[in-house]
Amino acid sequence: MRGTPAVAVLRLGHRPGRDERTTAHVGLTARALGADRVVLAGEAASRRDTIEDITDRFGGPFRVETTDEPMAVLEAWEGTVVHLTMYGLPVQEAMADVRAAFEDGTELLVVVGAGKVPFEVYERADWNLAVTNQPHSEIAALAVFLDRLFEGRELDRDWEDAERAVVPRETGKQVEES
Amino acid sequence: MRGTPAVAVLRLGHRPGRDERTTAHVGLTARALGADRVVLAGEAASRRDTIEDITDRFGGPFRVETTDEPMAVLEAWEGTVVHLTMYGLPVQEAMADVRAAFEDGTELLVVVGAGKVPFEVYERADWNLAVTNQPHSEIAALAVFLDRLFEGRELDRDWEDAERAVVPRETGKQVEES
Repeated sequence: MRGTPAVAVLRLGHRPGRDERTTAHVGLTARALGADRVVLAGEAASRRDTIEDITDRFGGPFRVETTDEPMAVLEAWEGTVVHLTMYGLPVQEAMADVRAAFEDGTELLVVVGAGKVPFEVYERADWNLAVTNQPHSEIAALAVFLDRLFEGRELDRDWEDAERAVVPRETGKQVEES
Repeated sequence: MRGTPAVAVLRLGHRPGRDERTTAHVGLTARALGADRVVLAGEAASRRDTIEDITDRFGGPFRVETTDEPMAVLEAWEGTVVHLTMYGLPVQEAMADVRAAFEDGTELLVVVGAGKVPFEVYERADWNLAVTNQPHSEIAALAVFLDRLFEGRELDRDWEDAERAVVPRETGKQVEES
């Protein structure tokens, strides 16, 4: 999001045939809620077009990248790494520290898994954070994390180069095409 | 969530073979983030066991209901209906009013769709609300909505009758079985 340090989301553990829609939701949630790009690891790369198609139509900037070596991405990352996991520390207790690091200009990588996440990710992460210690959804965890990180400002961002834009309505649907 | 009026989540538009995991994520997100029950409409009912299994293991209270007549559920609902849709009004502008109605003791039904949602839902809803007017994820929208409705208190709730509980850790995984 413009005016803040860069935020990337790394999608790990995509299982073909199971995670097609959840990986697309991770990418689209990253885009809609203020991240600058998503990195799709391994077979998650199959969702690239779905996410890019939304950016083409509804605007950006937002980038989709792919990698076959997510651990190399993690090792090379010079900024802060937050891994969202139900086993981590409560997000509400760590958020002030995460935001302080972020607002100092540190780029942030947010890691979310579908299947089991390698132990090396827990070790590399600067913070392993839980949006509740309950099993639910990496999409939900990512959404709550980003909304809290940006303190709601992401909901008011502008979009560039959009072919279409939704006009908010009390009832029904209105879409403007440019 | 105890100490607040009841919140139910109604899952519409489940498409077999496409929405298995997203419907499970909707139900588990509802549970983890403070709703009291989820109502699975039509073929979403196939995810009932998945969600109930988590409640059996990780605690409740949380109920799963199913219906073949979601419009009847909507018509009969005596409290407030919020429909989360990318076409709606900005959630951040309406939230104070929604929360005021809720804190007055009005039960709340939150409707989220997978595929296209019938126009009757837009008409019945007291609020059609958008967590951004961008296409992303009903799971993400539900998560942000519940986190804002409960103002974060849902992250600290207690769970009853849990067979197992995660112990928050800085690194790694710790689960206690009872």
